[in-house]
Amino acid sequence: MIIGGAEDKLRRRTVLQDFVTASGGRESRIAVIPTASSIGEEIVAVYAALFGKLGAAQVEAVDPTSRDDAHDEDLVAALDDATGIFMTGGNQLKLSSIINGTPVGQAIVRAHRRGAVVAGTSAGASIQSSHMVAFGSGGATPKQRMTQVAAGLGLLTSSVIDQHFEQRNRYGRLLMIVAQSPALLGLGVDEDTAATVTHEIDDTTGAEREVMRVTGRGAVTVMDGSRMITNAFEAKRSAPLLASGVVLHVLPAGAAYDLTRRELLPGETVIDPEDAAELEAVGKDLRRMARDIAASDASPTVLRRRMSRLRKLRSAEQSPLDDQPDPLPAALLEPARTPENGATR
Amino acid sequence: MIIGGAEDKLRRRTVLQDFVTASGGRESRIAVIPTASSIGEEIVAVYAALFGKLGAAQVEAVDPTSRDDAHDEDLVAALDDATGIFMTGGNQLKLSSIINGTPVGQAIVRAHRRGAVVAGTSAGASIQSSHMVAFGSGGATPKQRMTQVAAGLGLLTSSVIDQHFEQRNRYGRLLMIVAQSPALLGLGVDEDTAATVTHEIDDTTGAEREVMRVTGRGAVTVMDGSRMITNAFEAKRSAPLLASGVVLHVLPAGAAYDLTRRELLPGETVIDPEDAAELEAVGKDLRRMARDIAASDASPTVLRRRMSRLRKLRSAEQSPLDDQPDPLPAALLEPARTPENGATR
Repeated sequence: MIIGGAEDKLRRRTVLQDFVTASGGRESRIAVIPTASSIGEEIVAVYAALFGKLGAAQVEAVDPTSRDDAHDEDLVAALDDATGIFMTGGNQLKLSSIINGTPVGQAIVRAHRRGAVVAGTSAGASIQSSHMVAFGSGGATPKQRMTQVAAGLGLLTSSVIDQHFEQRNRYGRLLMIVAQSPALLGLGVDEDTAATVTHEIDDTTGAEREVMRVTGRGAVTVMDGSRMITNAFEAKRSAPLLASGVVLHVLPAGAAYDLTRRELLPGETVIDPEDAAELEAVGKDLRRMARDIAASDASPTVLRRRMSRLRKLRSAEQSPLDDQPDPLPAALLEPARTPENGATR
Repeated sequence: MIIGGAEDKLRRRTVLQDFVTASGGRESRIAVIPTASSIGEEIVAVYAALFGKLGAAQVEAVDPTSRDDAHDEDLVAALDDATGIFMTGGNQLKLSSIINGTPVGQAIVRAHRRGAVVAGTSAGASIQSSHMVAFGSGGATPKQRMTQVAAGLGLLTSSVIDQHFEQRNRYGRLLMIVAQSPALLGLGVDEDTAATVTHEIDDTTGAEREVMRVTGRGAVTVMDGSRMITNAFEAKRSAPLLASGVVLHVLPAGAAYDLTRRELLPGETVIDPEDAAELEAVGKDLRRMARDIAASDASPTVLRRRMSRLRKLRSAEQSPLDDQPDPLPAALLEPARTPENGATR
């Protein structure tokens, strides 16, 4: 579970609730790794309170502060026992410098393999890919040396994860990495947004695949450089890079993407039960009308009544863009219609 | 000539010099349209001074401030006589509201057709496409109503131009427009950067095409939604949009893109004359060595001398990334090696 940072902790805790539920809810034993943070103790206290409130059975801190610590058998045992592991934000290079290649690091990889939920936010998200953004600057245009790559935990292979993606304008640095390493899939996760990756068996082919599903308030941006053309091997120090033919996917909540075949999965359309009933009634009307017309036996009155029912439905089905010819004042005047407060349209 | 705003006016006036040169240099008659700006007179004074210094023969203001003004015959005559037209920055909706569909607007389109250079920066860039970003907010993630589209001059058909692209983080709003109108090609132009579009005849097929060449300090980002999948027709008011399969091209100075066929054109590699001479000498050495080895008649001393010459060259050819294992301090310590001051590597 790759979280783009700043997940909502006070109001709609969608992302954190999903983590606790996937970890086993009332049966969950969660290990919090705050190593990336410089205020580890306080961060653990916040997450312990949150996970407790969201239903976790047990929350424990696993906080190695040196590579030596990261050989501690008790910490390894806590990870081996966990049903969910949560890595906090902070400095991902600090986190990877302390745990990667140690027994604690190996225990996280092992937990992931046995099916425990491994989640991380911000720095804790970055470390999950095979290649990790170490640090770098913001900006939309990729430039030759705007960021650095280090080795991540590799829970997700052939990929590089960036976080706070929209909020810190990180298009450029992720594109730079993909331009220098077109084999890597670039994943940019917005704040309060999660990319949850599961291993699945394809129903039709029987092949194994990794599927990424998006939840939360923002989007996950995928950059696929499979067929890109770039000059990254020769561009000068701080020059903008040529990066042509990158396939881009911006995926909001509800979208599913096959990371193995690098393609969008068809969406499962969610239909409102009330809409479904009405659609069913109209469908019946239409079928009857078709029969009536074929048999030329419907009276004009009956046809008129049916047409009026259809018209009524059609006007209710108007696109959300049609109903507001002047969106700016409308946006100010109609707070009751914004999705934030739960109105459907 | 589509300029992304904030073109350098004091130091390297690459973009503005290109405009004057293309307009005819010492023979050029330039009309400046400052209508988008709220300080038209001052802006005209700045550009008149600049274009004069860069070699223009004549610079004249064409400043309609109402649709009524935009029917003025003298203004139309000035445009009909110009070899170059320059539209300043400001508010593109003000500019289009005053000139689009008026004799002044028609004179610009006519000038473009007869081969005069029509250039514009910022607002003056936006207005050139068929569809114009009217206003909107920044941010990397496309959301349903983050921007508005109005009609542009249509010098460039089936496209939408955005400017200050990297500096104001406008990925999201350009993606939103392409998601709602996948037939449009999205062009995002960075500051101090120009996309120069020319009509050309393809040497091989004889077909007409529009070719875009990039100059200046930043990049031009092209978004091609030809094969995209999106939920823009049904996404709710401020929700992030699904935009999957957008093909992205980030094009720095020197890149050329075929707007008609929507593909990158192969780059013409520019080789330093000094490098070329050295490569030629080494090539000769290698050919001689191959002959010598085949004939088994070269003395070990001769072979050794040639090998040392090759090694020397190879070390000089090192990639720009190899020579600085620690780029951060190097960037601070070695200003003489940055591209800004003209050193080659």
